[in-house]
Amino acid sequence: MTRLRLGMVGGGEGAFIGAVHRMAAALDGDWDLVAGAFSTDDGRNARTGTLLGLDGSRVYPSIEALIARERALPADDRIDALTIVTPNHLHAPMAIAALDAGFHVFCEKPMAMSVVEAEAIAAAAKASGRRFALAFTYSGYPLIEEARARVARGDFGAIRLVQVEYLQGWLSRPIDVDGNRQAEWRTDPARAGLGGCLGDIGTHAFQLAELVSGLSVESVSADLAAHVEGRRLDDDVSALLRFTGGARGVLKASQVAAGEENGLRLRIHGERGGLDWAQMEPNMLTLRWLDRPAELLRTGGPGLHDGAAALTRTPAGHPEGYIEAFANLYRAFAAAIRGEGHDRRFPGVVDGLRTMRFIEAVIANAGSDRKWTALDSGDSE
Amino acid sequence: MTRLRLGMVGGGEGAFIGAVHRMAAALDGDWDLVAGAFSTDDGRNARTGTLLGLDGSRVYPSIEALIARERALPADDRIDALTIVTPNHLHAPMAIAALDAGFHVFCEKPMAMSVVEAEAIAAAAKASGRRFALAFTYSGYPLIEEARARVARGDFGAIRLVQVEYLQGWLSRPIDVDGNRQAEWRTDPARAGLGGCLGDIGTHAFQLAELVSGLSVESVSADLAAHVEGRRLDDDVSALLRFTGGARGVLKASQVAAGEENGLRLRIHGERGGLDWAQMEPNMLTLRWLDRPAELLRTGGPGLHDGAAALTRTPAGHPEGYIEAFANLYRAFAAAIRGEGHDRRFPGVVDGLRTMRFIEAVIANAGSDRKWTALDSGDSE
Amino acid sequence: MTRLRLGMVGGGEGAFIGAVHRMAAALDGDWDLVAGAFSTDDGRNARTGTLLGLDGSRVYPSIEALIARERALPADDRIDALTIVTPNHLHAPMAIAALDAGFHVFCEKPMAMSVVEAEAIAAAAKASGRRFALAFTYSGYPLIEEARARVARGDFGAIRLVQVEYLQGWLSRPIDVDGNRQAEWRTDPARAGLGGCLGDIGTHAFQLAELVSGLSVESVSADLAAHVEGRRLDDDVSALLRFTGGARGVLKASQVAAGEENGLRLRIHGERGGLDWAQMEPNMLTLRWLDRPAELLRTGGPGLHDGAAALTRTPAGHPEGYIEAFANLYRAFAAAIRGEGHDRRFPGVVDGLRTMRFIEAVIANAGSDRKWTALDSGDSE
Amino acid sequence: MTRLRLGMVGGGEGAFIGAVHRMAAALDGDWDLVAGAFSTDDGRNARTGTLLGLDGSRVYPSIEALIARERALPADDRIDALTIVTPNHLHAPMAIAALDAGFHVFCEKPMAMSVVEAEAIAAAAKASGRRFALAFTYSGYPLIEEARARVARGDFGAIRLVQVEYLQGWLSRPIDVDGNRQAEWRTDPARAGLGGCLGDIGTHAFQLAELVSGLSVESVSADLAAHVEGRRLDDDVSALLRFTGGARGVLKASQVAAGEENGLRLRIHGERGGLDWAQMEPNMLTLRWLDRPAELLRTGGPGLHDGAAALTRTPAGHPEGYIEAFANLYRAFAAAIRGEGHDRRFPGVVDGLRTMRFIEAVIANAGSDRKWTALDSGDSE
Repeated sequence: MTRLRLGMVGGGEGAFIGAVHRMAAALDGDWDLVAGAFSTDDGRNARTGTLLGLDGSRVYPSIEALIARERALPADDRIDALTIVTPNHLHAPMAIAALDAGFHVFCEKPMAMSVVEAEAIAAAAKASGRRFALAFTYSGYPLIEEARARVARGDFGAIRLVQVEYLQGWLSRPIDVDGNRQAEWRTDPARAGLGGCLGDIGTHAFQLAELVSGLSVESVSADLAAHVEGRRLDDDVSALLRFTGGARGVLKASQVAAGEENGLRLRIHGERGGLDWAQMEPNMLTLRWLDRPAELLRTGGPGLHDGAAALTRTPAGHPEGYIEAFANLYRAFAAAIRGEGHDRRFPGVVDGLRTMRFIEAVIANAGSDRKWTALDSGDSE
Repeated sequence: MTRLRLGMVGGGEGAFIGAVHRMAAALDGDWDLVAGAFSTDDGRNARTGTLLGLDGSRVYPSIEALIARERALPADDRIDALTIVTPNHLHAPMAIAALDAGFHVFCEKPMAMSVVEAEAIAAAAKASGRRFALAFTYSGYPLIEEARARVARGDFGAIRLVQVEYLQGWLSRPIDVDGNRQAEWRTDPARAGLGGCLGDIGTHAFQLAELVSGLSVESVSADLAAHVEGRRLDDDVSALLRFTGGARGVLKASQVAAGEENGLRLRIHGERGGLDWAQMEPNMLTLRWLDRPAELLRTGGPGLHDGAAALTRTPAGHPEGYIEAFANLYRAFAAAIRGEGHDRRFPGVVDGLRTMRFIEAVIANAGSDRKWTALDSGDSE
Repeated sequence: MTRLRLGMVGGGEGAFIGAVHRMAAALDGDWDLVAGAFSTDDGRNARTGTLLGLDGSRVYPSIEALIARERALPADDRIDALTIVTPNHLHAPMAIAALDAGFHVFCEKPMAMSVVEAEAIAAAAKASGRRFALAFTYSGYPLIEEARARVARGDFGAIRLVQVEYLQGWLSRPIDVDGNRQAEWRTDPARAGLGGCLGDIGTHAFQLAELVSGLSVESVSADLAAHVEGRRLDDDVSALLRFTGGARGVLKASQVAAGEENGLRLRIHGERGGLDWAQMEPNMLTLRWLDRPAELLRTGGPGLHDGAAALTRTPAGHPEGYIEAFANLYRAFAAAIRGEGHDRRFPGVVDGLRTMRFIEAVIANAGSDRKWTALDSGDSE
Repeated sequence: MTRLRLGMVGGGEGAFIGAVHRMAAALDGDWDLVAGAFSTDDGRNARTGTLLGLDGSRVYPSIEALIARERALPADDRIDALTIVTPNHLHAPMAIAALDAGFHVFCEKPMAMSVVEAEAIAAAAKASGRRFALAFTYSGYPLIEEARARVARGDFGAIRLVQVEYLQGWLSRPIDVDGNRQAEWRTDPARAGLGGCLGDIGTHAFQLAELVSGLSVESVSADLAAHVEGRRLDDDVSALLRFTGGARGVLKASQVAAGEENGLRLRIHGERGGLDWAQMEPNMLTLRWLDRPAELLRTGGPGLHDGAAALTRTPAGHPEGYIEAFANLYRAFAAAIRGEGHDRRFPGVVDGLRTMRFIEAVIANAGSDRKWTALDSGDSE
C-alpha cells in the first residue's frame, strides 16, 4: 500500500501539537511527512526539518512557498495533504489556500475565528472537492465510537440529560504573561479568537456532546469568567444547554481548575440508562441501567460493535491512549482520500461550523441579560 | 452518661427515612427512642411501636397527643427532642409546635414549604431557646468536615470554582403515579412544596456546596425540567451559580439520571489546588495540587485535622457510611443539648433558610427570561 | 419485639473491638447491653459501665462473677448471650464457661489458641445446645453473601483460582514494644497464640476464601516472616493453597505493608468468569466474564438475590460499611436464638475449627522443608 | 537525524506482536522498517511486505537469506538491527546468527528455551559488540521508571514485600486445540519451551519485580497447574519468592483467570511506605505512606524525576499506553546504537538470563517435594 505524503504548517520544534500530529500520522504507516513550513523563524524551521529527517529542499519558509512549490511537483511526489497547526487566526486563510491549491487539509481546532470564516472554509472545501479534517481528537477513541453507536441505536431510549466537562488547571497562574508560548497566544484575542478556554477546550466538549448524543444544541445560557487578573480572554466556561427534542445539558470547561490535567468527561442519560466516559481512562466505558447491573465496556473487549473494534490495535488490556485516538483520525482521513473506509468517520466541516456557532452563541449570551441564546442550525454536509 | 430521650413523628413501618433516623440515633448510645406518632393509620402506628419495643402508652395517634402528654410527664421521663420525618408540608407546623412546647427538634429537609415558613421556624427556635437540627445528612461525613476545614484555612487559596452534582435515577419511570408511596408525595406540590428534585436533593447539593466552600451563592440562573410525562414537579435541575467573591459554580441534580444511585459529588477548586469528594465512596477525599502530586485523604487516616478525626469510629480502612454520617449529626445534636461539644457542628436554622431561599430563587429564575436571580442573604445565627 | 439482653467480657473504654461490638449490636434494635466485665482494672471497669449507662449492679469484676450472678437472675432479666472480646488466650475458657452456664456466646476470632481448644468449645456448644458465633465480620457484608451465592449456583463454572489478600501496615514499626496496647498483646505468643499476623488477619482471609468459594483447602505451602526486629510472632504471611477439586490459591496477609489500611480483597475465577471484592469499597462486587462485559453489582442495587438484598438497610448508593456488616452478624445471631431467620448465616464453630487447622498447618509447614502440609478436614456442623 | 534501518523476522500479517513492534518502532521517527522475512509461507510473506510498503527485493524467504543479502549491502543501506518475533524456539539460533553477522538484535521474550541457550546468546552479544534488546515491554512505562528510581533512592526504606501478578483469561477454554494460532504454539512445548503461562507472562512479572525492587530473587517455591484438560504446558503459576536481603514475595500469573484482560500489577512495600502500579491504568502510580496521605503520581505530572519525565510525549492527562511504552524501548535501543542516551535503559541480556533461571527454578521446584529451589545468580552485564 503506497503511503500518502503529508506536509505541515506550524509545529516547529518544541511545539506540542505539531509533534502529536506527526506521531499520529506515523503510527499506522499510512503517511510519510515529506514537507513543511514549521516556523517563521528560519533557524527553527531548518532545525525542525533536519530533526525530522526531511529533505532540505522541502522545508519552506512560508505556506505560500510550500504551496507554490509542492503543486509544481509531479503528482506522485507532491504532498497529498497539509496539516495546519498554527495559532487559530491563521487556520482559515491557510486552509482555504491549501484547498484551493488542490490539497486535502487536516486542521487544528477551533476551525476559524468566526462562523463567517468557517463558512468560507466550508465553501472552499466544497468547491475544491478536497477533504477537510478537524482535530477533534477525542472523537477518535474507540469507546467514543461505541458510545455514539449505542445512543444511536436506542440502547438508552430517548436522551434526557447530557453532561460534559473539560477541566484543566494549567492556566491557574498568569503564565500567559510570564513567557509560556502556548499560554501566550491562546489568551491573545488577536490570535486565539473570541474565546479563550471556550475556543480551546470548550469546543472539544461541545463537539463530543453533540457527536455522541446525536442531538443538536438549540440554545445556551452561559457564564464566562476570567479568574486570573489581567487575562484578556475567558479561562472558565459554564453553560446550560437545551437540545432538540427536550434533552437538557450542562457544559463546564475550565483552564483554572488547579490540579486537573485533561479532564474531559461525558455522561449521557436516557430513559433506560446512561453512559459515562472519561478521557483520562479512555479504555473504559461504563453503562448504567435502570433495572440491571452496570456494565464495563473495555477497548478491545467483548460487547463492542465492529466499528469500535476496528479502531483498536492491541488486545484488551493493552491500553491505547491519546496518540492512538489521534491516529484513528489520520487513518480515517487517509482512507477517505483513497476512497476506502466509508465507515470510518473523522470530524470535519460540519463539526467545525457547529462549534463556531457555539462559540458565538456563548459569547453573545454571556454578555447579555437574556436567559437563552439560540444557535443557528441548518449546517449539513 | 444518661441517654437522651427521643420521640418521632412519622416513620411508620416501611418508611425509609424514619428507620434511618432510628439507626443513626441508636448507633452511639446517646439516644433512646421512647415515644412516637408514627402513622395516622392506627394499625400501622401501633405495629411500629410494638416492633420498636416501645411502651404502648407512648405510641400516640397524633403529634398533638404526643406533645400534650409528653410535656405533662416528669422532666426525667419525658422526651428531650422530637424527630420530624413527615412529608414536607408538615415540617413547619410540627416543628413550631414542638419548639413552643419546649422540645428540641430534629427535622427532615427541606425545612419548610417556603422562606416565610422557614423564618417562622427560625423565630420559634429563637424564642424557645431550643435546638433545631436539619437532616442535611451529608454534612456528617468526616471527610466533608475535613474538606470544609481545608478550604477555610486557605489550603487552596481563593476559591474559583464550585461544582456540585446529585444524580439519582429512581424517578426515571412514572412510578409516582404507579403506587410508589415515596415517589407519590415527593412529586405532589401540595405535600412536597414548590420543588420536586430541587427540594428533595437539590437542597442537599446546595447546602453542601455552601458549607464546604464557605461561600454564599449570590445569584442563580437555572433550568428546571419534568422529563416524565404527567409529572407535576421538576425531576431535573441545572443551575449556574455566582458566589460572593467571584467564584463560579454549577449545580446539577436529577432524579431521572437512569442507572444512577445516589451520586452526590462535590468539587471545589482554588488558586493552588482543589478537592473532590463523592458520597458513594465517602471515605476518600482527593486533593489535587498545581505543583505537586495529588493526595488521597482517608477517613481515619493520616493528615486529618482533629475535628474530622473525631467523627470516625473505626481505624482507617474499616469503611463508615451513610448511617455513621447521620449518627454524627445525632451525636452533635445530643452534645449541643447537653451543653457539650461546642466544636461539633450540625446543620440547622441557617442551612434551612439558605436552602429555602435557593429553592425560591431557582423557581423564580427558571420561569423567567432573566439571566440571573439573586438570593436574599443576610441570614445569620 | 422484645430485645435480647447482652453481656460483654472485655472491651473496656479505649478498646477498639469492644466498642464495635456494641455499635453492631445496637444498630438494628435487636439487643440491649445490660451487663459486663469490661476490665480487670476496677476503675476502668466501673467507668466503662457508667459511660454505657449500665446499672452498676451488673458491672462485674470478672467473668466468674458475671456468670454466677446472671444465671441467678430471673429468665426474663438475665442476659441471653455473652460477647467475648478479650485477648485470644482467654477465648476458650471463657466461651466454655459461658456455654456451660447456658448462655449463647459471640466470640472474637481467632476461636482459640489451638485446634484442641477449639474442639473443646465445639463440644461445649454441642452439649449446651447454645449458639456460638465468631466475629468473622467480613462475612456479614451483603456482597460477600451475593458472591457466595453466585459461586454456589455455578455462575462461574468450576472454580480454578482463589486469590485472597489482607494487607495492613500498622505494625510496620516496633510499636508492640513501644506501648501500644493493641499491638502488644497481639504480638505476644502467650496471649495471641502461635500466629501473629496469621491469627489476627490471616484467619479472616482464609475464612472468607473458603466461605465464598465453597471449597476446602486441602494443603498449604507457606512462608512466615517477622520483618520487624525483635518481633516474636510473624507479621507477614504468604501461602500457596490447594483446594479440593483442583483449584489453586494464594493467600497473602501482612501487617507490615506500610501505608495499607485494611486491605482485604478476594478474587475467585472459574471456567467462565470471576469475581472481585475489596473490603475497603465493600458496596461494589465486580463480575468479569469470558465473553461479555464485566458487571458491577452494588449493595442494594439490581441483580442481587434476596439473601443479599436482605442484608441492606438503605437504598443503593447510601454506603453501608464495616459496622453494618458486623450488625448483620448480630442480627443473624439474634434471629437464630429466637428460632427465626433460618436463612441468615453467621460464622461459628465450623469456621472456627477450619481457621485453627489452617493456623496449625501454616506454622507446621513454614518451619519445615516439606512443600505441602495437609489440613485435617472432617469438620462438620 | 538519520533514521536507523530495521529488519524483522516473523510478524507476518495477522500476527499480533509483529505489528506492535512496527508501530513502536515507527512512533518516534527513529526507525525505518526496510527489510523482512515475515513468514515461511511465501504468499503471506510477500503480502506482508507489500502491505508495509517495502521494496520487494528486501522481503526475504528466510532469515538466512536476509542476513546473507543484507550484510552484503553498503553500510549506509543495510539494516542496522533485526527484530525477532518468532515462536520461542527460534529466538536463540536467529539471535546468534544475527549478532554474529554484525546486526543489533531486538528479540521477543522469553529470551530462549533454556539457560544454556540464553548464555549462548549472551556470549554472542559480547563477542560481537552488538546490542541485544529484549521485549520486556512493561519496563518502558514512564511510571515503572519512576517506581524503580523511587525504590533505588530509598524513599520506602528497606524493601520487605514484593507482590506481582499477571492475570489473563484468554486461555480459559481449550482454544489451543481449536485453531487459534497464537494459543497453539504458546502451549506447544516444542515451540514455547518448558513454561507455558510461566514463560509467556510469568517472565514479565518476574522481570518487572526484580527491575523495580532492585532486588534479586534467591529462591522460589512454586505451584504450576494446567487447568484446561489436555493442555501440555502450565496455564497457571503461583510462586513464593525470597529475595536477597530478606524481602518476601508472591508471584501469581495465570492465563485462565476468565474475564481478565492483561492484568499485570506490581506492589512493593518497604519500611516507610509502598507503591502500587497496574498496567491497565499505567498513567497512575500510587504511593502509600505510613504517616502521611497517599500520593498519586501521574505520567507527565508533577513530582517525577527527569528520567521518567523523559519517557512521556504528551502533557499530563493525555494518556499514553502500551505502544508508547514499547516505543520507549525502541527509542532507547536506537540511542544506545547511536552511542547517545546513556541514561535510557532497555532490557537485555541480564534480564533475559535472570528470567530463564527463574523459569528453570520454578519448573524444578514445582515438580519436587522440596520447599525452596535456588536461582543461580551471578549474572552481570
